[in-house]
Amino acid sequence: MRDRGSVTRGAPAEHRDLAALFDPRSIAVVGASRDRTKWGGDLASRLSRDPAGRDIYLVNRRGGDIQGRRAYPSLQAIGSPIDLVFLAVPARGFSDAVDDALAVGAKALVVVTAGLGELGAAGSAIQEAAVAKVRAAGSLLVGPNCLGVADTTTGLNAVALLDIPPGPIAFISQSGGVGEEIVTRAQQFEQGFSRFVTLGNQADVGIADVLWSLVDHQKTRLVAIYAEDLRDGRQLAAAAAACVASGKAVLLLAPGRTEASARAARSHTGALTSDASVVDAVCRAVGALRVETPDELVETAVGLLSGRLSRGRAVAITSDGGGHSAIAADVVASVGLSVPRFSDGLRARLAELLPANAALDNPVDFAIATVDPSTHARVGRALLQSGEVDALLVTGEFGYWGARFPELTELGQQELQAARDLATLAHDHDLPVIVSTVNKGHSPAPDALLSSGVPVYREILSAARVLAHLARAGAACPGGLPELPRPSGEPLTVGDYWSARQILAAYGVPFAPARLVHGTGEALAAARDLGYPVVLKAMGLLHKSEAGGVALNVTGPEELLAACADMQGRLSPTALTVERMAPTETGVELIIGCRQDPRFGPVVLVGLGGIYAEILKDSVVALAPIEESDAHGLLTSLRGAALLLGARGRPPLDVPAAARVAAALSHFAATHPEVAEVELNPLLLMPRDAVALDARMVLVDAVGRP
Amino acid sequence: MRDRGSVTRGAPAEHRDLAALFDPRSIAVVGASRDRTKWGGDLASRLSRDPAGRDIYLVNRRGGDIQGRRAYPSLQAIGSPIDLVFLAVPARGFSDAVDDALAVGAKALVVVTAGLGELGAAGSAIQEAAVAKVRAAGSLLVGPNCLGVADTTTGLNAVALLDIPPGPIAFISQSGGVGEEIVTRAQQFEQGFSRFVTLGNQADVGIADVLWSLVDHQKTRLVAIYAEDLRDGRQLAAAAAACVASGKAVLLLAPGRTEASARAARSHTGALTSDASVVDAVCRAVGALRVETPDELVETAVGLLSGRLSRGRAVAITSDGGGHSAIAADVVASVGLSVPRFSDGLRARLAELLPANAALDNPVDFAIATVDPSTHARVGRALLQSGEVDALLVTGEFGYWGARFPELTELGQQELQAARDLATLAHDHDLPVIVSTVNKGHSPAPDALLSSGVPVYREILSAARVLAHLARAGAACPGGLPELPRPSGEPLTVGDYWSARQILAAYGVPFAPARLVHGTGEALAAARDLGYPVVLKAMGLLHKSEAGGVALNVTGPEELLAACADMQGRLSPTALTVERMAPTETGVELIIGCRQDPRFGPVVLVGLGGIYAEILKDSVVALAPIEESDAHGLLTSLRGAALLLGARGRPPLDVPAAARVAAALSHFAATHPEVAEVELNPLLLMPRDAVALDARMVLVDAVGRP
Repeated sequence: MRDRGSVTRGAPAEHRDLAALFDPRSIAVVGASRDRTKWGGDLASRLSRDPAGRDIYLVNRRGGDIQGRRAYPSLQAIGSPIDLVFLAVPARGFSDAVDDALAVGAKALVVVTAGLGELGAAGSAIQEAAVAKVRAAGSLLVGPNCLGVADTTTGLNAVALLDIPPGPIAFISQSGGVGEEIVTRAQQFEQGFSRFVTLGNQADVGIADVLWSLVDHQKTRLVAIYAEDLRDGRQLAAAAAACVASGKAVLLLAPGRTEASARAARSHTGALTSDASVVDAVCRAVGALRVETPDELVETAVGLLSGRLSRGRAVAITSDGGGHSAIAADVVASVGLSVPRFSDGLRARLAELLPANAALDNPVDFAIATVDPSTHARVGRALLQSGEVDALLVTGEFGYWGARFPELTELGQQELQAARDLATLAHDHDLPVIVSTVNKGHSPAPDALLSSGVPVYREILSAARVLAHLARAGAACPGGLPELPRPSGEPLTVGDYWSARQILAAYGVPFAPARLVHGTGEALAAARDLGYPVVLKAMGLLHKSEAGGVALNVTGPEELLAACADMQGRLSPTALTVERMAPTETGVELIIGCRQDPRFGPVVLVGLGGIYAEILKDSVVALAPIEESDAHGLLTSLRGAALLLGARGRPPLDVPAAARVAAALSHFAATHPEVAEVELNPLLLMPRDAVALDARMVLVDAVGRP
Repeated sequence: MRDRGSVTRGAPAEHRDLAALFDPRSIAVVGASRDRTKWGGDLASRLSRDPAGRDIYLVNRRGGDIQGRRAYPSLQAIGSPIDLVFLAVPARGFSDAVDDALAVGAKALVVVTAGLGELGAAGSAIQEAAVAKVRAAGSLLVGPNCLGVADTTTGLNAVALLDIPPGPIAFISQSGGVGEEIVTRAQQFEQGFSRFVTLGNQADVGIADVLWSLVDHQKTRLVAIYAEDLRDGRQLAAAAAACVASGKAVLLLAPGRTEASARAARSHTGALTSDASVVDAVCRAVGALRVETPDELVETAVGLLSGRLSRGRAVAITSDGGGHSAIAADVVASVGLSVPRFSDGLRARLAELLPANAALDNPVDFAIATVDPSTHARVGRALLQSGEVDALLVTGEFGYWGARFPELTELGQQELQAARDLATLAHDHDLPVIVSTVNKGHSPAPDALLSSGVPVYREILSAARVLAHLARAGAACPGGLPELPRPSGEPLTVGDYWSARQILAAYGVPFAPARLVHGTGEALAAARDLGYPVVLKAMGLLHKSEAGGVALNVTGPEELLAACADMQGRLSPTALTVERMAPTETGVELIIGCRQDPRFGPVVLVGLGGIYAEILKDSVVALAPIEESDAHGLLTSLRGAALLLGARGRPPLDVPAAARVAAALSHFAATHPEVAEVELNPLLLMPRDAVALDARMVLVDAVGRP
């Protein structure tokens, strides 16, 4: 069977206790080095400064003295049990070091050593053998190929070459480098971390384990993840959903949208990436927000930590310059938000607050705020009070005077007051107030915004992206995770077209009436029985359409005879089917399919088929199984849904029928893990009824490949 | 007639001489103020420090002393002629100040005063009257509502409250605030400006005038524009094309993609914005690059000023960390570039250069470069030498050691050397090398990259966007600007359906055979003549389809009688048409239309029609007139072009026939400025032939409104 070990079915495993990882009483660094530019040297140095007064031991097989501390030649030489062991040894010494750590009773191992599972089969085998011993000993292992762990709430500061500032973000990363970047960017927003865990190859402890440990972690307000391999996907999704349910936003940065990034992930951490559409579906289901870059991750975290979400997509834009407001309006629209016109009443209110040359509709252009900074909050209050918008975006040159005159002028003072007023405004109305200004980092007022909890960005696209996430988070109504049923019935061993029809029909998929026939005589009888026109298909071919094994719209016996003779001559089929021709001109072709994702198990896809599939590439994915109402939601979320719902005078089609089919297919796939892929293409959706015109099924082979 | 004064037809006007603006011998500031936070005070202060030894005069009607200089009570009181006059007076004093300036022989006026044309009709009238006098005097006027002008090549430093650093960029802005932001951002990249012109309302001198002045301006290597109103659009386009032809890249930031931004622009500078698709078409035609934000503008300028364009879309990504390379691969793909796999030969070469745990395919992950910075250039050289890619993107943590150890360590020195080596590499291979690192601004090595001409960015999306622009600029093959013919023939005065058919048919548009009839008898005769099935249409209605004035597929005389009776009863049409029913099932419906853009005159649109128009919103625009080859290019550039070219076993359609129709319609529109809009919707494109099934024409009315 293919590697589906990570797809947990039924009740979740017990959550692992990570206390020894985040708050050990004693710590040893094996491979401690004198060179502080080496990981083993840096970890030794920063653990030696442990503020919590833990017992810290450095181990180097040459013994002696390291950074002013005694170095033990081995863990055993320490002579007392060790809770947490860091391994920074060469790959060839890894297995022995694990044995040694377990021998001194290590409850947790953090393995910085690289060159194991990420390099291929040999390394994986070594890694797996070690993990088996670790688990047998009731211990746990983080890594290999990681940079370490920090918990600022317990004073554990053990990420190689990186200081982790304290704060409300828990960050889980498969990449040390990305983690470093996240820390640097967070510091520019005066943000820090509760926990910071680099997982490397996730040989034992995975993202899901850390997520479970965060659900009740009081000091964590937001969880951010950099993941290449969403191993144990259903558990991970359940843990993420639990974090969201406990009021902690979850942000996910997971490359893998392209073949090239999947290739990179495979090489980096040996990751098996899920299709990007599956990850998107998981995020929707659990209410997590997906981001594309480290800067978007940190910027969005800053926005979410301000604590206020949008209740809709309508944004009021204000600016101290008309150019900035025009640019902002386009950018805000480009991320899917709206910049609605204001009511007459609101415009009249703004006219009282602003000079004659101001723009009184959305976007608002003060034309004067560089001169009178108090305008920002005064106008902002009128806008948020109106109830006409869900968020306020302040653009332009906030902090202008502070940036120009380093000695604090009266105008600079007024800007500082404006910053405080904007914070009060956001608080009073419990709506997002976001600022975009090039003066961030160059003027005191933008800094004052940040420290009073108003997110401020240097680029308008950053601000707009964050607003879009706040609207997404505000609207999120996580669909929840379907429970994955246990496999049912005997595993299928035959997946040919006729078998697929039979089994899927039993699950409730409607097919056009058809007969399996073995000769011309039987074919003629079947066609007479079904009524012309019919479709003739040749069985036993891998790709029957491409091979010329399908004859559509056969209108009478002579044509059928000719088609039979042709196929039998050319293709030597094992059998034929005769099927009633469906009225294709009355409907729209859909694709309904399921497959086994390597990390999330069965997923279902619905999309437009036929010519639309080619041009529109319009499909959407969900974790299987789904119910009819879910399927209906997926179908109507297609960009081309208008085609199904009756556009331009066309009759509306029987979307509930298609939803029934999608739900049925998803239940079939969820209970048949031996089916790698199953697809109805097309499912003809008509004004009344839907009918599958073809089915394709691929079984997982003995070694787990489809 | 509507305001089409800006659409120049025939030979271009003579280019205006802007010497008095950029290199005057004498300058006066009218409205000079003691308060340096006021524009009139700041301009007085910075002009008083003129490095070129010009004669500088300050004018304030109260006379006295300003900032240590004598203030004249009036321009006349100076007693000598003045080349360039800055006006920073209140709006009510504007007209008199212009008169005074012209009276002392001012060859150029720069008007900082706001509250004129941007406020509406009254201000516009004052503004226009002043401009008429300025032009009559052979002078020129910049503004009103601008922030001033700088030419660092002549030492003219007169933008209010803003120091313009010298450099190779000429920046033309309708917004002072956006200009300020551009300067701030450019300084962060150590870039500056040759000329910096804020145009405000463009009452006289427009973007086109400044562009013409830049074509031969040696010190300008790149032209960037912030524009809300592309006034005199065809002239502007011609000037931009001339800049591009002279080797200067042209970047355009022009909001107006949404109703909200157009509203903002209207309010800000009284701008009449063109449709975004028209501006896109102009950029394609002249080889200019369109950007969406100030940061994208500056980042792209930095990329272009490195002097190297891509010859294709294939990017090699290298990184000192696998996480960064995976993220970069997705981001690079998201901007339309490719990350191709490497050949076996190249992978073998990389294996010689990199350790066992490196990723040897694209994206390349060194896994070690933070330890050995020389890897960057060594691997980069192998990649660029291979000929398999068009650009190199270095991601990750370049400058890592310099950021961590402020005292320059050996590794920090190696990073500096790596920066120099990357610059040499780009130079040797004449291909773009772009770096993305969070350490920009925090480490000496990224700074060293910038000063040796290697663009470096803090965000991976910035770097990817720049690479996409470099590929666009490298591939640009500007179509050139069509010459706008003079109006021909008598202006049309009737634009109803039947008239439109007649005139368009004369231009070569094929219509289904039809008869105009006035009663049931004539209708029956016409149908007999044309052959059933026919289409019956009611004339004299504004929207005949929506009103039920079109009966399709009338199959015989009885049906026709019933349809005639029904329409005559319900709609009292002025007449009817009977038309031969086209075989709509054999083709694809297109929309071919033209309209008069307020700034660029006639433009042509081709797009998918019918149900595809609704779902795909798939259309493309070009300046009219176009030739058949242009039209063919537009049609095949549609996202849904596969529908026309024969997708999924469909027959290819007669694209040349559609191209002929589009070219014909565009020539019609170009010679008939009195036609505000004309549209063939649908044009049915079949395997052989195309036929217009409906036509709609809207004439410009007497006051210029359609």
